[in-house]
Amino acid sequence: MPQPPPPLASPLWRSLRTYQIFGANTEVGKTVFSTLLAKAAARRCPGGVAFLKPVSTGPDSEADDRCIHITKFAPDVSNKTLFQYKIPVSPHIAARLSNKVSHHPTLLASQSIPVSPSHHAQTIPSNEALLFQTRDYAAQCANIGRKWLFVETAGGVHSPGPSGTTQADMYAPLRLPVVLVGDSRLGGISGTISAFESLRMRGYDVESVVLFKEDKYQNYEYLSEYFAEHHDVPVAGVVEPPERRSRLEEDVRAMSQYYEEQSQHKDTSGVISHLESRHEQRIKQLNSMATEALHNIWYPFTQQSLLSPKDINVIDSAHGDYFQTLSPTSTASPSESDSLLRASFDGSASWWTQGLGHANPKLTLAAAYAAGRYGHVMFASGIHRPAAELSSTLLKGMENPRLTRVFFSDNGSTGIEVALKMGLRAAKLRYGWSAEEKLGVVGLRGSYHGDTIGAMDCSEPSGYNEKVEWYDGKGHWFDYPTVLCVDGKWRVNVPRELREALGEDADFGSLSEIFDVKGREEKGHHLRYEAFIRETLERLQKQGRKFGSVIIEPVVLGAGGMALVDPLFQRALVNVVRKSPELFHKPNTSFESPSSPTAWTGLPIIFDEVFTGLYRLGRFSSSSFLETHPDISVHAKLLTGGLVPLCTTLASENIFETFSSQDKTDALLHGHSYTAHPVGCQVALESVKEMQKMERGGSWDWAKAQGWTTSGTPVLSEQPAGDVWSTWPRDLVEDLSRQTDRVSGIWALGSVLAIHLKDASGTGYFSDAAQSVRDGLIAGDPEGVNGPWNVHCRVLGNVLYLMAGQKTTEESVARIGSLLRERLKE
Amino acid sequence: MPQPPPPLASPLWRSLRTYQIFGANTEVGKTVFSTLLAKAAARRCPGGVAFLKPVSTGPDSEADDRCIHITKFAPDVSNKTLFQYKIPVSPHIAARLSNKVSHHPTLLASQSIPVSPSHHAQTIPSNEALLFQTRDYAAQCANIGRKWLFVETAGGVHSPGPSGTTQADMYAPLRLPVVLVGDSRLGGISGTISAFESLRMRGYDVESVVLFKEDKYQNYEYLSEYFAEHHDVPVAGVVEPPERRSRLEEDVRAMSQYYEEQSQHKDTSGVISHLESRHEQRIKQLNSMATEALHNIWYPFTQQSLLSPKDINVIDSAHGDYFQTLSPTSTASPSESDSLLRASFDGSASWWTQGLGHANPKLTLAAAYAAGRYGHVMFASGIHRPAAELSSTLLKGMENPRLTRVFFSDNGSTGIEVALKMGLRAAKLRYGWSAEEKLGVVGLRGSYHGDTIGAMDCSEPSGYNEKVEWYDGKGHWFDYPTVLCVDGKWRVNVPRELREALGEDADFGSLSEIFDVKGREEKGHHLRYEAFIRETLERLQKQGRKFGSVIIEPVVLGAGGMALVDPLFQRALVNVVRKSPELFHKPNTSFESPSSPTAWTGLPIIFDEVFTGLYRLGRFSSSSFLETHPDISVHAKLLTGGLVPLCTTLASENIFETFSSQDKTDALLHGHSYTAHPVGCQVALESVKEMQKMERGGSWDWAKAQGWTTSGTPVLSEQPAGDVWSTWPRDLVEDLSRQTDRVSGIWALGSVLAIHLKDASGTGYFSDAAQSVRDGLIAGDPEGVNGPWNVHCRVLGNVLYLMAGQKTTEESVARIGSLLRERLKE
Repeated sequence: MPQPPPPLASPLWRSLRTYQIFGANTEVGKTVFSTLLAKAAARRCPGGVAFLKPVSTGPDSEADDRCIHITKFAPDVSNKTLFQYKIPVSPHIAARLSNKVSHHPTLLASQSIPVSPSHHAQTIPSNEALLFQTRDYAAQCANIGRKWLFVETAGGVHSPGPSGTTQADMYAPLRLPVVLVGDSRLGGISGTISAFESLRMRGYDVESVVLFKEDKYQNYEYLSEYFAEHHDVPVAGVVEPPERRSRLEEDVRAMSQYYEEQSQHKDTSGVISHLESRHEQRIKQLNSMATEALHNIWYPFTQQSLLSPKDINVIDSAHGDYFQTLSPTSTASPSESDSLLRASFDGSASWWTQGLGHANPKLTLAAAYAAGRYGHVMFASGIHRPAAELSSTLLKGMENPRLTRVFFSDNGSTGIEVALKMGLRAAKLRYGWSAEEKLGVVGLRGSYHGDTIGAMDCSEPSGYNEKVEWYDGKGHWFDYPTVLCVDGKWRVNVPRELREALGEDADFGSLSEIFDVKGREEKGHHLRYEAFIRETLERLQKQGRKFGSVIIEPVVLGAGGMALVDPLFQRALVNVVRKSPELFHKPNTSFESPSSPTAWTGLPIIFDEVFTGLYRLGRFSSSSFLETHPDISVHAKLLTGGLVPLCTTLASENIFETFSSQDKTDALLHGHSYTAHPVGCQVALESVKEMQKMERGGSWDWAKAQGWTTSGTPVLSEQPAGDVWSTWPRDLVEDLSRQTDRVSGIWALGSVLAIHLKDASGTGYFSDAAQSVRDGLIAGDPEGVNGPWNVHCRVLGNVLYLMAGQKTTEESVARIGSLLRERLKE
Repeated sequence: MPQPPPPLASPLWRSLRTYQIFGANTEVGKTVFSTLLAKAAARRCPGGVAFLKPVSTGPDSEADDRCIHITKFAPDVSNKTLFQYKIPVSPHIAARLSNKVSHHPTLLASQSIPVSPSHHAQTIPSNEALLFQTRDYAAQCANIGRKWLFVETAGGVHSPGPSGTTQADMYAPLRLPVVLVGDSRLGGISGTISAFESLRMRGYDVESVVLFKEDKYQNYEYLSEYFAEHHDVPVAGVVEPPERRSRLEEDVRAMSQYYEEQSQHKDTSGVISHLESRHEQRIKQLNSMATEALHNIWYPFTQQSLLSPKDINVIDSAHGDYFQTLSPTSTASPSESDSLLRASFDGSASWWTQGLGHANPKLTLAAAYAAGRYGHVMFASGIHRPAAELSSTLLKGMENPRLTRVFFSDNGSTGIEVALKMGLRAAKLRYGWSAEEKLGVVGLRGSYHGDTIGAMDCSEPSGYNEKVEWYDGKGHWFDYPTVLCVDGKWRVNVPRELREALGEDADFGSLSEIFDVKGREEKGHHLRYEAFIRETLERLQKQGRKFGSVIIEPVVLGAGGMALVDPLFQRALVNVVRKSPELFHKPNTSFESPSSPTAWTGLPIIFDEVFTGLYRLGRFSSSSFLETHPDISVHAKLLTGGLVPLCTTLASENIFETFSSQDKTDALLHGHSYTAHPVGCQVALESVKEMQKMERGGSWDWAKAQGWTTSGTPVLSEQPAGDVWSTWPRDLVEDLSRQTDRVSGIWALGSVLAIHLKDASGTGYFSDAAQSVRDGLIAGDPEGVNGPWNVHCRVLGNVLYLMAGQKTTEESVARIGSLLRERLKE
């Protein structure tokens, strides 16, 4: 596979003020304003101003051609057009129709973009090609000491570029600050405000609005007030250019005089001063933010005394899988030509939340729609469409006949507390325990369910919680066999202490074979597991231990150290518990066995799918890997596609009925102010439906074909037994696992790749074993063709993990994979 | 004061399909499409179609006048224009310039709107007048059995209306479903998409996009694909009307033929069918939502078995202080002319979160901007502008020299757990307690700090928590004197059990006198309080009780029953604890007293301002009422102005340093996935700054002047000692308090009004005493002039409370106050 072009650093240099000029509509005077601003800037920095038109469409009469306009009236401004089409229509049509693409071979030659000079007549430049070339031109300007660069767009903000993507979306990864040329004509107030909103909701900073002053419609007057009041953005007005003269020379003379006068006018130079100070302010803020943050912020999960400003990731923006972060060179020994920003692959998927990419316009508009339709509305005894639709979508998507109810809260911790309150109450009432008899949970060693005290209490004592004052773990936590690829082999690893009970490590031909739990049951692999679990529970019962729920993270224990648990073991645990109510009821009391097949038996089974669910591991629900159905299921993180906090706790009717009575105090007395906030529900609905659509449409077939599926060909969405796959190629996983000097094992599933490194210290979560590999990824490539780039990632003790989003491309994965191979060899 | 016009129910009737026609720009063919759609609808329902132009501006040539266009080419369509201006400019200019306003006296006569017929030449209709008249016309249509109503706007979506508000904002409270007329000209793709986005982010449902089919720019082709892919909205194309003929008769003939043909064309009738089915679907969904919700949702804090569908508040949308909810008549015995929606005053401020009104466009755009710039980015060791700016804004706004650090979490409960982890650790380390010695908190009886187990554990056992399995309250909770207006007198009420220690009830001349804590200290009022507190703590110490923090809700205990605590008592508690480290340290150990004046002494003082802070009680911080500075302060609810969940826990440097070491495990190991999510931070920043601006600008002077300030005149923003005020008029509070047969006492502060009703049963939170008053408010006025309206509110046991937003108007308060007076008399 050819190496894809490296990620794109957003263009920002200390010395070069780059502004993108968008128009509220076509024919609003963008060319005139570009020329005026360039000319006004050139008065301050003679020879220091450049102008770029990435895409230009006709008419190609001399007077109207933008480059020529600039050339004629601002002769000391360098200018360039990347793609020129001669037909005066939108670029997406022009690009298809035109056979007169006049590209610029010098520039193209310096780029490894998929534009072949010999086929230029047929070529429609890709979005990436346009972005790379725009950045490259800006870099050239910075290198030769230019002070200003104006990048003019074509048509209105949403006019389609050559590929068909609208420009506001296409240029978003550059996030250049914007000068918006407003529309001074009738109807222009509306168009200007809407264009502004379209830019703003894509994260652009519109620093200035400029338009012609015109007496009849007075748009300038209205917009000045409007933008001052609503957006704190200055609006500058300029008198209209002279009427067009019929004779070219006269026209040129009149325009020339107009430009001379207006470029010296205080309103025009005021815009330049403002843009200059905004540029300085942006850089100043970027440079001071880390220091200020260490001063004002109390960071989560961070020993702050070990940090200095250079350790703080200063994030200017994020798009798709990449952050734009402040480049370390900019603070160390800055030179004028150092790029201040670098592209950072979001290798922890922003704490495991990212699904559809940062700044996904669909999610933004979903959030804005719900905000505009409702804001937040209180949810107790209320209902709104986003909550209603999300509820039915989730219940249906789970394909779990037990789950009928959705309870909303704000994050995984609170959702787990809700699940606990549900499960424990159900067990207490059926088995007749009193309020004083605190019931424990049955879980797995190394589980982690969140940071609130109640969520912490369902994990065993560990470095996470042992210093927390009110922590009081309640339960029993089983040790268990894990799955790892070790030296190229897929292995179920049995901890030394369990070998007597569970047998030795076992190798399998593939990960899919391990996940074929029913096939393995036919071979009796589960018998030892079940016997061990039952014996343990019997022993605990004899000790007087009382339990009220099982709570596990299906398949992967995330925060506890990215352990891939043998799914057969978790399945055995659920099955033993469900078959054995006699292990859990109160001694010498009777209880009623439920008749419904969807009622819980033994103990309520809670699955914490906060991390593992909703396609993180490749499937809608991670319970499907165990081929079992929990009674309660908790979902967050990917639920809202990485945008806002929201959590749902799904429960069975049988559990729900436990709280049902004529007594108000029997209700589940839990609820947060923003419970089921419409913004979160609408975003979640959009996000879940989009991922379901991707699954149905085979969006991940390329990943499945990376050696994962048995046949080697893409598989359909109904998973056959044991069908597992990952965004990360199987050969990458197996190759890395052969570095047995450093790697103790590795696994990949869905979008997760976890590398367990050898750790002599044995300090678990607080180990430094993975740190050096991480440092190598974070150093990245400071000399990337499209600017510096790196991989931002997190470690959990001796485990380095990388997590892709659901929209991450094959190319991105290949690039990160290559870097990882290099860094692991170092 | 004249009674303000009643709230506006959004127009929705089973029989009448009402659609609003917006244009992507001016001159895109709105008139042609309106006529076409009206004509096509009239083919199905002869005589059943109406057309409304709320505001029309020139040109007044016969051919272009919209009404005449409709009259001429769709003669069986009723039509009306509310305000006609003859000048062909935007309505906001026309309204100012025109002396030819031709209003419609019949319509105006039926309305109590502030438009005086004798001054019509100078009149600029208010937004309300336009909305009321639009709704009234729709109601008339529904009453006489019309089936369709098309409401045509003027210019583009954001073209200003007569008052200057843009139409997209002005018409938002009606939230009529929309037909958007796209722009088929060059640049029209951009304008159409932007216009759509501006509507969508204001909560409009754009049900159909229509535009002319045109070959050169092919906007129809592009937009069809675009809207199908991105928004699932159908786009219909219609051939362009014939070129204008020079002779009027010929032109009329050509247009007539065009309308005849095109109104029968399947593409046009397809739009009508689609609009018809969307209307039916909307009503069907509204009618089924309550039943579905009771089936799928598990409600917070609700004994669901006591609810039937009629108890569920079905919320179609919300704007400002009002929900639009499904009217009960629509489900009981629906007739064609029953309004399906009613306006419901959000009397619980959506669980105390609302500040700047539902669907505030500034907050929406703030959310959209952050979503578009970042999405979410992981926060551990990262920083982004919204978090940075919000942190410094909060730290500055608190005016508390102790607070230097901001820790982010997702809601009040988690923020309290963070505060507890901070405070308890600090006390443990200074006083040398071991990990096993669980430290309790010092608090007040009836406190409530949230629903997670850790937050619950810092409240004493109560109906809220006694059935929760892992609840284990740790602390001592003081009883305290409360403040109430009783029979017209402002009284500090001492609980019977405390009278021996604290003295009898005491009356004051005003609420401000009670809040003049320093003045009262000069008179020695605090001495008995301090003695009582000290003696109690000494006794507890002798019993071996150990404490690690004080945690209180300053001034008002919210969820615990809306108790207004004597601020002098809370101040005394803080002062005694701070002066008395000897009451809290470990026996027979020494400890180091801090030298910094901003370090905590005695115990860390935690203020839970989740409900009381950020202007809920009229001030930025409710700690200012106590004239003291906590060491830790928790803020949520109003923080994000009622949009998305976010919480900040502010702490002192001295507390922060407790966690600082070279050991990673000493860090505060707490953090949620969406910690400091940029959307929440940006919204919070916008919200907090807006409220600060309102305070500076005297936005609440009208409220202060309602009898609250001593002088009776508005006061400046720096509160003099004891200066308190409420959105609710003092005479309302005092009058209601004289209904001593039902009211045991009442108080108002900031935007909160709490009526304590006499309750014979003594069941506290689960009492039904306030229910009948609440039922009266919820019944509201089903025959309001602008459609049915009511007051949605919540009770806390025997307390009925009403909560306004920070933008609630004097008129709204007056109206709700009148209704309340009536209902309390019943």
